[in-house]
Amino acid sequence: MKSSSSRHRINRRVLLSGLAVLPTLYDVSAPAMAQTQSAPDGSLGSWNDGPAKQAILDFVRATTDQASSKFVPPEDRIATFDQDGTLWVEQPIYSQVVYCLDRVPAVVAKDPKLGNVEPFKTVLSGDREAIARLSLHDLEKILVVTLTGMPVDEFDAEAKKWLTTAKHGRWKRPYTDLIYQPMLEVMQYLRGNGFRTYIVTGGGQDFVRVYSDRTYGIPPEQVVGTAGGTKFGYSKDGTPFLTKEPKLLLNDDKAGKPEGIHLMIGRRPCAAFGNSDGDREMLEYTDTGSGARLMMLVLHDDAKREYAYGPAQNLPATKVGTFSQRLYDEAKKKNWTVISMKNDWKRIFAFET
Amino acid sequence: MKSSSSRHRINRRVLLSGLAVLPTLYDVSAPAMAQTQSAPDGSLGSWNDGPAKQAILDFVRATTDQASSKFVPPEDRIATFDQDGTLWVEQPIYSQVVYCLDRVPAVVAKDPKLGNVEPFKTVLSGDREAIARLSLHDLEKILVVTLTGMPVDEFDAEAKKWLTTAKHGRWKRPYTDLIYQPMLEVMQYLRGNGFRTYIVTGGGQDFVRVYSDRTYGIPPEQVVGTAGGTKFGYSKDGTPFLTKEPKLLLNDDKAGKPEGIHLMIGRRPCAAFGNSDGDREMLEYTDTGSGARLMMLVLHDDAKREYAYGPAQNLPATKVGTFSQRLYDEAKKKNWTVISMKNDWKRIFAFET
Repeated sequence: MKSSSSRHRINRRVLLSGLAVLPTLYDVSAPAMAQTQSAPDGSLGSWNDGPAKQAILDFVRATTDQASSKFVPPEDRIATFDQDGTLWVEQPIYSQVVYCLDRVPAVVAKDPKLGNVEPFKTVLSGDREAIARLSLHDLEKILVVTLTGMPVDEFDAEAKKWLTTAKHGRWKRPYTDLIYQPMLEVMQYLRGNGFRTYIVTGGGQDFVRVYSDRTYGIPPEQVVGTAGGTKFGYSKDGTPFLTKEPKLLLNDDKAGKPEGIHLMIGRRPCAAFGNSDGDREMLEYTDTGSGARLMMLVLHDDAKREYAYGPAQNLPATKVGTFSQRLYDEAKKKNWTVISMKNDWKRIFAFET
Repeated sequence: MKSSSSRHRINRRVLLSGLAVLPTLYDVSAPAMAQTQSAPDGSLGSWNDGPAKQAILDFVRATTDQASSKFVPPEDRIATFDQDGTLWVEQPIYSQVVYCLDRVPAVVAKDPKLGNVEPFKTVLSGDREAIARLSLHDLEKILVVTLTGMPVDEFDAEAKKWLTTAKHGRWKRPYTDLIYQPMLEVMQYLRGNGFRTYIVTGGGQDFVRVYSDRTYGIPPEQVVGTAGGTKFGYSKDGTPFLTKEPKLLLNDDKAGKPEGIHLMIGRRPCAAFGNSDGDREMLEYTDTGSGARLMMLVLHDDAKREYAYGPAQNLPATKVGTFSQRLYDEAKKKNWTVISMKNDWKRIFAFET
């Protein structure tokens, strides 16, 4: 049995502090309209009529109609959703990375010698530009000390507390407010039609499980993410507990997504939603099954209401959530649906109403 | 991030061919009867009235009665079941090991040079005594070539085919006929009361998932087992597929069971069923949660209808499914319920009627 050490490189996308959000200078022209209909119960209320909404309606009709040649039996109705940039805002920096940076002072308080060494010294300095320049290797050190080494219950409590107090710099709201209302409606609509919705994220599985149920209606057992090992042990009074270990079991990004789906679900999804090159393999894997399929990619082309980044369609490049021209071309070739946030979404956040 | 190589030792229990099944010379005396009642819908029909059946009924009543201080909300109603020796026969040798041995000729046909080297030469010889003497290291080699290196779909098809043709030496029936009817009834009874039932097995996750749904009514996503990695790739025509890799991600035995439960489910069970020392940590972990708890251990004390092995209560020792005196004592001390197959089960297999 060979070591899995080759997988141990943390493939997290890089810290990015000062993303210059330019006003979009280009218009994504509205695609030609097909005959569009509403969801029977109006459950896609935040979607504009158009090809993206229509693709969702067509897919649900085909999978649930027993007379359809593309009918999918209920047990195989699995839909998977990337999280960062697909279900909630990922700019200018992944929320979980903010969590890790915010935890550094508490970690240093417990282990003061860390405060004198890099990268912890830089994080404590509060110098945003210096923090933004930290290398992936530095970031890995920060992730290890803030995400591992503690009992599972202690981590859950810390993450929960942070989620109630931390706020996004632009909207001054908790991160869990920054979920995309149209995507929430898709998940609810699919569940209403017998689908089980899973999150399949490059983010930490334990982190996302802390809030997935109340934020998305997705229970912890339906969250697949980048996962580390735990170690079973006993406290002094003999109570068993699990400690989070710095040992990577699943790097749930790119090829790791279908691998993670096989490990954790054991079925091929028939619908998959993403927004970046990290989701390509998941969509390809989904596309290969039989019966009706739905592959969708969220394109961030709305700098006014959210962000605009690409480089698909010449949007500004970004270090977080890269949606390459190559992926865009593959989507067009394979008839995957690209969702234009600007054109397809009537509103983006629930608090906009 | 440290390597997970220390976990790479395959901890499978040893091949055992010639288990001398002695007639039991000792009687497990029937425990004192409490006031026993039937399941409201008669769904525990293969159980004799007694403390084991009563423990199940009491647990379900407490967890589902909102007026009970031990009420468990539906989302937390998780019950986990070991498989080998808990849900189906594990003697004289694990079914999956039989599968691996049976696959050796096909593997050698594809790669003839293997036929000239050990341990494959011995397996091909058909010499049962020599096969029984193979070391754990030999067994590991056999598992690697028969369980990994092929596309996931190919493995599924082979395992499915084997399950329809292979038969247990004693009963001359397919292995999936040798499931314990009383345990099937417990799973159905729990599901009828809002529980989700999971298999948590030291056996191979991919192997058990092939038949879990039609055999136990447990879908693949609710099977947690010893799991290897897969590798995403493309066929010549560009179709993506997963290949089973000889890389151990989760050794789902002993401490690996609660670790696997955390990884794959992310919730602590409130009921857990096992039959051997490999299930101890899972039962301890289950016992530690709040609300009503149910921990049960199947004791194989019925040599006439199945097998008798221990060494709990001075039953004959065995290399497969060791239920030690230490575990037996812990169960008694912690008020876990030991199920006597002889006394608690009216019938063992569905085909007995």
